[in-house]
Amino acid sequence: MKELLLIGIGPGHPDYLTVQAIEAMRRVDVFFFLEKAGEGKGELIRIRREILERFVPDGGYRIVTAQSPTRDASGPYRDGVEAWYRAKADLFAGLIEHELADGECGALLLWGDPSLYDGTLAILKGLLEEARVAFALEVIPGITSIQALTARHKIPLNRIGEGIQVTTARRLAATDPEQIANTVVMLDSNAAFRELAGTDLTIYWGAYLGTEDEMLVSGRLADLATDLAEQALRAKAEKGWLMDIYLLRREGPRE
Amino acid sequence: MKELLLIGIGPGHPDYLTVQAIEAMRRVDVFFFLEKAGEGKGELIRIRREILERFVPDGGYRIVTAQSPTRDASGPYRDGVEAWYRAKADLFAGLIEHELADGECGALLLWGDPSLYDGTLAILKGLLEEARVAFALEVIPGITSIQALTARHKIPLNRIGEGIQVTTARRLAATDPEQIANTVVMLDSNAAFRELAGTDLTIYWGAYLGTEDEMLVSGRLADLATDLAEQALRAKAEKGWLMDIYLLRREGPRE
Repeated sequence: MKELLLIGIGPGHPDYLTVQAIEAMRRVDVFFFLEKAGEGKGELIRIRREILERFVPDGGYRIVTAQSPTRDASGPYRDGVEAWYRAKADLFAGLIEHELADGECGALLLWGDPSLYDGTLAILKGLLEEARVAFALEVIPGITSIQALTARHKIPLNRIGEGIQVTTARRLAATDPEQIANTVVMLDSNAAFRELAGTDLTIYWGAYLGTEDEMLVSGRLADLATDLAEQALRAKAEKGWLMDIYLLRREGPRE
Repeated sequence: MKELLLIGIGPGHPDYLTVQAIEAMRRVDVFFFLEKAGEGKGELIRIRREILERFVPDGGYRIVTAQSPTRDASGPYRDGVEAWYRAKADLFAGLIEHELADGECGALLLWGDPSLYDGTLAILKGLLEEARVAFALEVIPGITSIQALTARHKIPLNRIGEGIQVTTARRLAATDPEQIANTVVMLDSNAAFRELAGTDLTIYWGAYLGTEDEMLVSGRLADLATDLAEQALRAKAEKGWLMDIYLLRREGPRE
Protein backbone atom coordinates (compact mmCIF):
# COMPACT_ATOMS: atom_id res chain seq x y z
CA MET A 1 0.00 0.00 0.00
CA LYS A 2 1.06 3.59 -0.66
CA GLU A 3 0.39 6.41 1.75
CA LEU A 4 -0.15 10.07 1.01
CA LEU A 5 -0.14 12.83 3.62
CA LEU A 6 -1.66 16.26 3.14
CA ILE A 7 0.21 18.39 5.64
CA GLY A 8 -1.01 21.87 6.54
CA ILE A 9 2.03 24.10 7.11
CA GLY A 10 0.20 27.25 8.19
CA PRO A 11 0.52 30.63 6.52
CA GLY A 12 4.14 31.34 5.81
CA HIS A 13 6.25 31.14 8.94
CA PRO A 14 7.87 27.80 9.88
CA ASP A 15 6.96 28.46 13.55
CA TYR A 16 3.31 27.88 12.62
CA LEU A 17 4.01 24.16 12.08
CA THR A 18 2.51 21.79 14.61
CA VAL A 19 4.27 18.92 16.36
CA GLN A 20 1.99 16.56 14.43
CA ALA A 21 3.09 18.05 11.11
CA ILE A 22 6.77 17.85 12.03
CA GLU A 23 6.50 14.22 13.16
CA ALA A 24 4.63 13.36 9.96
CA MET A 25 7.30 15.01 7.78
CA ARG A 26 9.95 12.85 9.42
CA ARG A 27 8.40 9.65 8.08
CA VAL A 28 7.95 10.91 4.51
CA ASP A 29 9.90 9.29 1.66
CA VAL A 30 8.83 11.65 -1.12
CA PHE A 31 7.75 15.30 -0.96
CA PHE A 32 5.86 16.48 -4.02
CA PHE A 33 6.48 20.16 -4.81
CA LEU A 34 4.17 21.75 -7.35
CA GLU A 35 5.66 24.74 -9.09
CA LYS A 36 3.17 27.37 -10.08
CA ALA A 37 3.87 29.68 -12.95
CA GLY A 38 3.97 33.31 -11.87
CA GLU A 39 2.64 34.19 -8.44
CA GLY A 40 5.20 33.80 -5.69
CA LYS A 41 6.59 30.75 -7.45
CA GLY A 42 10.16 30.85 -6.20
CA GLU A 43 9.26 32.14 -2.75
CA LEU A 44 6.61 29.55 -1.91
CA ILE A 45 8.96 26.72 -2.90
CA ARG A 46 11.82 28.33 -0.95
CA ILE A 47 9.72 28.44 2.25
CA ARG A 48 8.90 24.73 1.88
CA ARG A 49 12.58 23.88 1.43
CA GLU A 50 13.46 25.89 4.54
CA ILE A 51 10.79 24.01 6.50
CA LEU A 52 12.31 20.67 5.47
CA GLU A 53 15.87 21.81 6.21
CA ARG A 54 14.86 23.02 9.66
CA PHE A 55 12.60 20.17 10.77
CA VAL A 56 14.01 17.17 8.88
CA PRO A 57 17.71 18.03 9.08
CA ASP A 58 18.85 14.45 8.58
CA GLY A 59 17.22 14.24 5.15
CA GLY A 60 16.30 10.70 4.11
CA TYR A 61 13.64 11.91 1.69
CA ARG A 62 13.53 12.84 -1.98
CA ILE A 63 11.78 15.81 -3.57
CA VAL A 64 9.82 15.40 -6.79
CA THR A 65 9.00 18.68 -8.48
CA ALA A 66 6.23 19.02 -11.04
CA GLN A 67 4.73 21.94 -12.93
CA SER A 68 1.25 22.69 -11.62
CA PRO A 69 -1.37 23.06 -14.36
CA THR A 70 -2.64 26.60 -14.80
CA ARG A 71 -6.27 27.67 -14.76
CA ASP A 72 -7.71 28.89 -18.06
CA ALA A 73 -9.41 32.16 -17.13
CA SER A 74 -10.70 32.86 -20.65
CA GLY A 75 -14.09 31.08 -20.31
CA PRO A 76 -16.68 30.89 -17.51
CA TYR A 77 -15.13 30.65 -14.00
CA ARG A 78 -16.62 27.27 -13.05
CA ASP A 79 -15.61 25.62 -16.34
CA GLY A 80 -12.07 26.93 -15.97
CA VAL A 81 -11.79 25.60 -12.44
CA GLU A 82 -13.22 22.21 -13.34
CA ALA A 83 -10.82 21.72 -16.27
CA TRP A 84 -7.96 22.85 -14.02
CA TYR A 85 -8.99 20.30 -11.37
CA ARG A 86 -9.11 17.52 -13.99
CA ALA A 87 -5.58 18.41 -15.13
CA LYS A 88 -4.42 18.39 -11.50
CA ALA A 89 -6.10 15.00 -10.95
CA ASP A 90 -4.15 13.57 -13.90
CA LEU A 91 -0.96 15.02 -12.49
CA PHE A 92 -1.51 13.57 -9.00
CA ALA A 93 -2.52 10.17 -10.41
CA GLY A 94 0.72 10.07 -12.41
CA LEU A 95 2.87 11.13 -9.47
CA ILE A 96 1.37 8.56 -7.12
CA GLU A 97 1.62 5.82 -9.73
CA HIS A 98 5.15 6.50 -10.96
CA GLU A 99 6.99 8.38 -8.23
CA LEU A 100 5.78 6.57 -5.10
CA ALA A 101 6.67 2.90 -4.56
CA ASP A 102 4.55 0.43 -2.63
CA GLY A 103 5.08 0.85 1.10
CA GLU A 104 6.34 4.41 0.65
CA CYS A 105 4.90 7.55 2.15
CA GLY A 106 4.45 10.67 0.04
CA ALA A 107 3.40 14.15 1.13
CA LEU A 108 2.21 17.50 -0.08
CA LEU A 109 2.98 20.52 2.08
CA LEU A 110 -0.09 22.75 1.80
CA TRP A 111 -0.26 26.42 2.70
CA GLY A 112 -2.55 27.09 5.69
CA ASP A 113 -4.93 24.19 6.29
CA PRO A 114 -5.81 21.44 3.76
CA SER A 115 -9.57 21.89 4.29
CA LEU A 116 -9.83 25.60 3.54
CA TYR A 117 -9.96 26.87 -0.05
CA ASP A 118 -7.47 24.35 -1.35
CA GLY A 119 -8.68 21.94 -4.02
CA THR A 120 -6.05 19.24 -3.39
CA LEU A 121 -8.07 17.19 -0.91
CA ALA A 122 -11.18 17.14 -3.13
CA ILE A 123 -9.07 16.10 -6.13
CA LEU A 124 -7.39 13.25 -4.24
CA LYS A 125 -10.71 12.00 -2.87
CA GLY A 126 -11.99 12.03 -6.44
CA LEU A 127 -9.09 9.75 -7.47
CA LEU A 128 -9.95 7.35 -4.65
CA GLU A 129 -13.66 7.33 -5.49
CA GLU A 130 -12.92 6.59 -9.15
CA ALA A 131 -10.39 3.93 -8.02
CA ARG A 132 -7.83 5.39 -10.42
CA VAL A 133 -5.02 4.84 -7.94
CA ALA A 134 -4.90 3.17 -4.54
CA PHE A 135 -3.40 4.90 -1.52
CA ALA A 136 -4.14 5.60 2.12
CA LEU A 137 -4.86 9.27 2.67
CA GLU A 138 -4.17 11.22 5.84
CA VAL A 139 -4.87 14.89 6.54
CA ILE A 140 -2.88 16.91 9.06
CA PRO A 141 -4.45 20.23 10.01
CA GLY A 142 -2.56 23.53 9.88
CA ILE A 143 -2.98 27.04 11.24
CA THR A 144 -5.24 28.90 8.81
CA SER A 145 -4.52 32.39 7.55
CA ILE A 146 -7.75 33.36 9.37
CA GLN A 147 -6.17 32.44 12.71
CA ALA A 148 -2.92 34.20 11.78
CA LEU A 149 -4.89 37.33 10.81
CA THR A 150 -6.84 37.53 14.06
CA ALA A 151 -3.76 36.71 16.18
CA ARG A 152 -1.66 39.42 14.55
CA HIS A 153 -4.47 41.97 14.96
CA LYS A 154 -5.17 40.62 18.49
CA ILE A 155 -8.89 40.45 17.82
CA PRO A 156 -11.60 37.86 18.32
CA LEU A 157 -13.16 36.63 15.09
CA ASN A 158 -16.64 37.40 16.43
CA ARG A 159 -18.33 39.01 19.40
CA ILE A 160 -20.47 37.20 21.99
CA GLY A 161 -22.82 34.75 20.34
CA GLU A 162 -22.42 36.17 16.82
CA GLY A 163 -21.97 34.05 13.69
CA ILE A 164 -19.05 34.16 11.24
CA GLN A 165 -19.00 33.97 7.45
CA VAL A 166 -16.03 32.96 5.33
CA THR A 167 -16.29 33.90 1.69
CA THR A 168 -14.31 34.80 -1.42
CA ALA A 169 -13.86 38.15 -3.11
CA ARG A 170 -15.86 36.75 -6.03
CA ARG A 171 -18.82 36.01 -3.76
CA LEU A 172 -18.43 39.24 -1.78
CA ALA A 173 -19.37 41.23 -4.86
CA ALA A 174 -22.77 39.48 -4.83
CA THR A 175 -23.36 39.94 -1.08
CA ASP A 176 -25.78 42.49 0.37
CA PRO A 177 -23.54 44.75 2.53
CA GLU A 178 -26.27 44.74 5.19
CA GLN A 179 -25.67 41.00 5.62
CA ILE A 180 -22.01 41.47 6.52
CA ALA A 181 -21.33 41.17 10.27
CA ASN A 182 -18.13 39.15 10.83
CA THR A 183 -17.09 38.22 7.31
CA VAL A 184 -13.67 36.87 6.37
CA VAL A 185 -12.74 37.40 2.72
CA MET A 186 -10.21 35.09 1.08
CA LEU A 187 -8.78 34.83 -2.45
CA ASP A 188 -9.02 38.53 -3.21
CA SER A 189 -5.64 40.08 -4.17
CA ASN A 190 -7.48 42.77 -6.10
CA ALA A 191 -8.80 45.06 -3.33
CA ALA A 192 -12.45 44.08 -3.74
CA PHE A 193 -13.14 45.86 -0.41
CA ARG A 194 -13.13 49.14 -2.35
CA GLU A 195 -16.72 48.41 -3.37
CA LEU A 196 -17.73 48.64 0.31
CA ALA A 197 -16.09 52.01 1.03
CA GLY A 198 -19.55 53.55 1.42
CA THR A 199 -20.55 51.25 4.31
CA ASP A 200 -19.82 51.63 8.02
CA LEU A 201 -17.77 48.45 8.18
CA THR A 202 -14.41 48.06 9.91
CA ILE A 203 -11.67 46.15 8.11
CA TYR A 204 -8.83 44.11 9.61
CA TRP A 205 -6.53 43.41 6.68
CA GLY A 206 -3.32 41.41 6.41
CA ALA A 207 -1.01 40.32 3.61
CA TYR A 208 1.97 37.96 3.38
CA LEU A 209 1.13 36.91 6.94
CA GLY A 210 3.94 35.22 8.81
CA THR A 211 6.60 36.31 6.30
CA GLU A 212 9.07 39.16 6.59
CA ASP A 213 6.91 41.17 4.18
CA GLU A 214 3.86 40.97 6.45
CA MET A 215 1.50 43.97 6.23
CA LEU A 216 -1.27 44.76 8.73
CA VAL A 217 -3.85 47.55 8.43
CA SER A 218 -7.09 48.11 10.32
CA GLY A 219 -9.68 50.81 10.67
CA ARG A 220 -12.95 52.15 9.27
CA LEU A 221 -13.29 51.11 5.65
CA ALA A 222 -14.79 54.49 4.78
CA ASP A 223 -11.59 56.21 5.98
CA LEU A 224 -8.97 53.93 4.52
CA ALA A 225 -10.32 51.92 1.55
CA THR A 226 -8.65 54.11 -1.07
CA ASP A 227 -5.27 54.26 0.66
CA LEU A 228 -5.31 50.57 1.53
CA ALA A 229 -6.15 49.58 -2.03
CA GLU A 230 -3.28 51.67 -3.31
CA GLN A 231 -0.90 50.13 -0.75
CA ALA A 232 -2.06 46.57 -1.54
CA LEU A 233 -1.84 46.96 -5.29
CA ARG A 234 1.57 48.61 -5.06
CA ALA A 235 2.87 45.66 -3.01
CA LYS A 236 1.36 43.31 -5.58
CA ALA A 237 3.10 45.14 -8.42
CA GLU A 238 6.44 45.16 -6.60
CA LYS A 239 6.44 41.52 -5.48
CA GLY A 240 4.60 40.15 -8.49
CA TRP A 241 1.88 38.57 -6.32
CA LEU A 242 -0.39 39.40 -3.39
CA MET A 243 -1.69 36.94 -0.81
CA ASP A 244 -4.07 38.87 1.43
CA ILE A 245 -7.02 38.18 3.71
CA TYR A 246 -9.35 40.39 5.71
CA LEU A 247 -12.15 40.47 8.22
CA LEU A 248 -15.04 42.88 7.68
CA ARG A 249 -16.90 43.65 10.90
CA ARG A 250 -19.98 45.70 11.60
CA GLU A 251 -19.26 47.50 14.85
CA GLY A 252 -21.88 49.21 16.96
CA PRO A 253 -24.79 47.58 18.74
CA ARG A 254 -24.49 43.85 18.98
CA GLU A 255 -27.05 41.61 17.32
CA MET B 1 6.00 46.21 32.03
CA LYS B 2 4.07 42.95 32.38
CA GLU B 3 3.40 40.66 29.46
CA LEU B 4 0.48 38.32 28.95
CA LEU B 5 0.32 35.61 26.28
CA LEU B 6 -2.86 33.98 25.05
CA ILE B 7 -1.65 30.68 23.65
CA GLY B 8 -3.91 28.54 21.47
CA ILE B 9 -3.21 24.88 22.29
CA GLY B 10 -5.49 23.30 19.69
CA PRO B 11 -8.30 20.88 20.46
CA GLY B 12 -7.09 18.30 22.94
CA HIS B 13 -3.99 16.53 21.71
CA PRO B 14 -0.54 17.93 22.60
CA ASP B 15 0.62 17.15 19.04
CA TYR B 16 -1.61 19.99 17.83
CA LEU B 17 0.70 22.56 19.46
CA THR B 18 2.73 24.74 17.13
CA VAL B 19 6.43 25.51 17.37
CA GLN B 20 5.47 29.11 18.11
CA ALA B 21 3.29 28.04 21.04
CA ILE B 22 6.01 25.80 22.46
CA GLU B 23 8.67 28.50 22.20
CA ALA B 24 6.30 30.98 23.85
CA MET B 25 5.57 28.58 26.73
CA ARG B 26 9.30 28.31 27.43
CA ARG B 27 9.57 32.00 28.30
CA VAL B 28 6.54 32.08 30.60
CA ASP B 29 6.97 32.77 34.32
CA VAL B 30 3.36 32.18 35.39
CA PHE B 31 0.68 29.99 33.86
CA PHE B 32 -2.85 30.87 34.94
CA PHE B 33 -5.14 27.84 35.12
CA LEU B 34 -8.85 28.55 35.45
CA GLU B 35 -10.80 25.74 37.02
CA LYS B 36 -14.35 25.42 35.82
CA ALA B 37 -16.97 23.82 37.98
CA GLY B 38 -18.45 20.73 36.39
CA GLU B 39 -17.77 20.10 32.72
CA GLY B 40 -14.51 18.29 32.11
CA LYS B 41 -12.92 20.19 34.95
CA GLY B 42 -10.26 17.72 35.97
CA GLU B 43 -9.57 16.49 32.45
CA LEU B 44 -9.03 19.89 30.85
CA ILE B 45 -6.59 20.88 33.59
CA ARG B 46 -4.81 17.50 33.32
CA ILE B 47 -4.23 17.98 29.57
CA ARG B 48 -2.70 21.43 30.19
CA ARG B 49 -0.38 19.97 32.84
CA GLU B 50 0.69 17.22 30.43
CA ILE B 51 1.44 19.83 27.78
CA LEU B 52 3.70 21.73 30.19
CA GLU B 53 5.45 18.55 31.39
CA ARG B 54 6.13 17.48 27.82
CA PHE B 55 7.19 20.79 26.26
CA VAL B 56 8.69 22.67 29.22
CA PRO B 57 10.38 19.74 30.97
CA ASP B 58 12.88 21.91 32.82
CA GLY B 59 10.14 23.81 34.66
CA GLY B 60 11.13 27.30 35.74
CA TYR B 61 7.54 28.50 35.87
CA ARG B 62 4.82 28.64 38.50
CA ILE B 63 1.16 27.75 38.12
CA VAL B 64 -1.54 29.93 39.63
CA THR B 65 -4.93 28.25 39.78
CA ALA B 66 -8.16 30.21 40.15
CA GLN B 67 -11.83 29.27 40.15
CA SER B 68 -13.49 30.49 36.96
CA PRO B 69 -16.75 32.36 37.57
CA THR B 70 -19.84 30.51 36.41
CA ARG B 71 -22.50 31.84 34.06
CA ASP B 72 -25.91 32.47 35.57
CA ALA B 73 -28.30 30.78 33.14
CA SER B 74 -31.46 31.76 35.02
CA GLY B 75 -32.09 35.09 33.23
CA PRO B 76 -31.82 36.20 29.57
CA TYR B 77 -28.81 34.69 27.75
CA ARG B 78 -27.08 37.96 26.90
CA ASP B 79 -27.40 39.36 30.44
CA GLY B 80 -25.99 36.15 31.89
CA VAL B 81 -23.01 36.23 29.53
CA GLU B 82 -22.30 39.90 30.19
CA ALA B 83 -22.35 39.47 33.97
CA TRP B 84 -20.13 36.41 33.56
CA TYR B 85 -17.66 38.41 31.45
CA ARG B 86 -17.57 41.19 34.08
CA ALA B 87 -16.77 38.63 36.78
CA LYS B 88 -14.02 37.18 34.59
CA ALA B 89 -12.62 40.67 33.94
CA ASP B 90 -12.38 41.24 37.71
CA LEU B 91 -10.64 37.90 38.08
CA PHE B 92 -8.09 38.60 35.32
CA ALA B 93 -7.43 42.12 36.61
CA GLY B 94 -6.68 40.71 40.06
CA LEU B 95 -4.43 37.95 38.73
CA ILE B 96 -2.40 40.34 36.59
CA GLU B 97 -2.12 42.85 39.39
CA HIS B 98 -1.24 40.50 42.22
CA GLU B 99 0.24 37.35 40.70
CA LEU B 100 2.43 38.78 37.94
CA ALA B 101 5.43 40.97 38.82
CA ASP B 102 6.79 43.75 36.62
CA GLY B 103 8.96 42.29 33.89
CA GLU B 104 7.31 38.89 34.16
CA CYS B 105 5.48 36.99 31.46
CA GLY B 106 2.14 35.31 32.20
CA ALA B 107 0.12 33.02 29.97
CA LEU B 108 -3.26 31.41 29.52
CA LEU B 109 -3.41 28.14 27.58
CA LEU B 110 -6.63 28.32 25.58
CA TRP B 111 -8.39 25.39 23.96
CA GLY B 112 -8.38 25.62 20.15
CA ASP B 113 -7.65 29.15 18.95
CA PRO B 114 -7.94 32.34 21.05
CA SER B 115 -10.02 34.14 18.39
CA LEU B 116 -12.81 31.58 18.02
CA TYR B 117 -15.69 31.48 20.51
CA ASP B 118 -13.52 32.21 23.51
CA GLY B 119 -14.28 35.39 25.45
CA THR B 120 -10.83 35.74 27.06
CA LEU B 121 -9.32 38.00 24.39
CA ALA B 122 -12.30 40.38 24.40
CA ILE B 123 -12.22 40.57 28.20
CA LEU B 124 -8.48 41.35 28.29
CA LYS B 125 -8.82 44.00 25.58
CA GLY B 126 -11.59 45.52 27.67
CA LEU B 127 -9.20 45.76 30.64
CA LEU B 128 -6.61 47.53 28.44
CA GLU B 129 -9.20 49.95 27.00
CA GLU B 130 -10.43 50.84 30.47
CA ALA B 131 -6.78 51.13 31.60
CA ARG B 132 -7.60 49.02 34.65
CA VAL B 133 -4.26 47.21 34.42
CA ALA B 134 -1.23 47.69 32.16
CA PHE B 135 0.30 44.81 30.24
CA ALA B 136 1.55 43.92 26.76
CA LEU B 137 -0.75 41.39 25.11
CA GLU B 138 0.29 38.78 22.58
CA VAL B 139 -1.90 36.23 20.82
CA ILE B 140 -0.55 32.92 19.51
CA PRO B 141 -2.89 31.10 17.15
CA GLY B 142 -3.87 27.46 17.59
CA ILE B 143 -5.43 24.70 15.52
CA THR B 144 -9.20 25.16 15.75
CA SER B 145 -11.60 22.31 16.40
CA ILE B 146 -12.96 23.09 12.90
CA GLN B 147 -9.62 22.13 11.36
CA ALA B 148 -9.39 19.04 13.57
CA LEU B 149 -12.91 18.00 12.53
CA THR B 150 -12.27 18.30 8.79
CA ALA B 151 -8.84 16.64 9.04
CA ARG B 152 -10.23 13.65 10.95
CA HIS B 153 -13.11 13.27 8.48
CA LYS B 154 -10.68 13.97 5.58
CA ILE B 155 -13.05 16.48 4.02
CA PRO B 156 -12.74 19.98 2.64
CA LEU B 157 -14.73 22.58 4.58
CA ASN B 158 -16.37 23.77 1.37
CA ARG B 159 -16.60 22.90 -2.30
CA ILE B 160 -15.22 25.00 -5.17
CA GLY B 161 -16.02 28.67 -4.67
CA GLU B 162 -18.65 28.08 -1.96
CA GLY B 163 -18.93 30.12 1.24
CA ILE B 164 -18.74 28.83 4.81
CA GLN B 165 -20.75 29.78 7.88
CA VAL B 166 -19.69 29.24 11.48
CA THR B 167 -22.47 29.46 14.00
CA THR B 168 -23.66 28.29 17.39
CA ALA B 169 -26.37 25.79 18.26
CA ARG B 170 -28.33 28.70 19.74
CA ARG B 171 -28.27 30.57 16.42
CA LEU B 172 -28.86 27.40 14.39
CA ALA B 173 -32.34 27.12 15.86
CA ALA B 174 -33.19 30.50 14.26
CA THR B 175 -31.65 29.67 10.86
CA ASP B 176 -33.72 28.82 7.78
CA PRO B 177 -32.58 25.27 6.86
CA GLU B 178 -32.59 26.32 3.19
CA GLN B 179 -29.77 28.77 3.98
CA ILE B 180 -27.48 26.02 5.26
CA ALA B 181 -24.77 25.02 2.75
CA ASN B 182 -21.45 24.54 4.57
CA THR B 183 -22.31 25.39 8.15
CA VAL B 184 -20.12 24.59 11.14
CA VAL B 185 -22.00 24.42 14.44
CA MET B 186 -20.13 25.04 17.68
CA LEU B 187 -21.16 25.16 21.37
CA ASP B 188 -23.96 22.62 21.01
CA SER B 189 -23.53 19.63 23.36
CA ASN B 190 -27.27 19.09 23.27
CA ALA B 191 -27.79 17.49 19.82
CA ALA B 192 -29.50 20.53 18.26
CA PHE B 193 -29.07 18.83 14.85
CA ARG B 194 -32.13 16.72 15.69
CA GLU B 195 -34.30 19.66 14.63
CA LEU B 196 -32.93 19.29 11.08
CA ALA B 197 -33.59 15.55 10.69
CA GLY B 198 -36.25 16.33 8.09
CA THR B 199 -33.80 18.07 5.73
CA ASP B 200 -31.50 16.53 3.13
CA LEU B 201 -28.34 17.74 4.86
CA THR B 202 -25.23 15.64 5.48
CA ILE B 203 -23.56 15.86 8.88
CA TYR B 204 -19.88 15.40 9.76
CA TRP B 205 -19.85 15.20 13.54
CA GLY B 206 -17.00 14.89 16.02
CA ALA B 207 -16.64 14.97 19.80
CA TYR B 208 -13.68 15.04 22.19
CA LEU B 209 -11.49 15.59 19.11
CA GLY B 210 -7.82 14.80 19.60
CA THR B 211 -8.40 12.92 22.86
CA GLU B 212 -8.56 9.18 23.42
CA ASP B 213 -12.36 9.43 23.67
CA GLU B 214 -12.66 10.94 20.17
CA MET B 215 -15.91 10.08 18.36
CA LEU B 216 -16.52 10.60 14.62
CA VAL B 217 -19.82 10.05 12.79
CA SER B 218 -20.90 11.15 9.32
CA GLY B 219 -23.79 10.53 6.96
CA ARG B 220 -27.23 11.77 5.94
CA LEU B 221 -28.85 13.55 8.84
CA ALA B 222 -32.22 12.03 7.94
CA ASP B 223 -30.75 8.54 8.42
CA LEU B 224 -28.75 9.04 11.57
CA ALA B 225 -29.99 12.04 13.58
CA THR B 226 -31.84 9.93 16.16
CA ASP B 227 -29.05 7.41 16.67
CA LEU B 228 -26.37 10.09 16.76
CA ALA B 229 -28.28 12.15 19.32
CA GLU B 230 -28.64 9.08 21.52
CA GLN B 231 -24.92 8.30 21.19
CA ALA B 232 -23.89 11.90 21.91
CA LEU B 233 -26.15 12.30 24.93
CA ARG B 234 -25.08 8.91 26.33
CA ALA B 235 -21.41 9.97 26.08
CA LYS B 236 -22.31 13.25 27.77
CA ALA B 237 -24.05 11.43 30.61
CA GLU B 238 -21.16 9.01 31.07
CA LYS B 239 -18.33 11.55 30.99
CA GLY B 240 -20.27 14.39 32.60
CA TRP B 241 -19.62 16.75 29.67
CA LEU B 242 -19.72 16.82 25.88
CA MET B 243 -17.52 18.95 23.65
CA ASP B 244 -18.73 18.40 20.10
CA ILE B 245 -18.69 20.20 16.75
CA TYR B 246 -20.18 19.45 13.36
CA LEU B 247 -20.38 20.51 9.76
CA LEU B 248 -23.75 20.49 8.02
CA ARG B 249 -23.44 20.31 4.24
CA ARG B 250 -26.00 20.44 1.48
CA GLU B 251 -24.83 17.88 -1.08
CA GLY B 252 -26.11 17.67 -4.62
CA PRO B 253 -25.75 20.27 -7.33
CA ARG B 254 -23.21 22.92 -6.57
CA GLU B 255 -24.25 26.53 -6.25
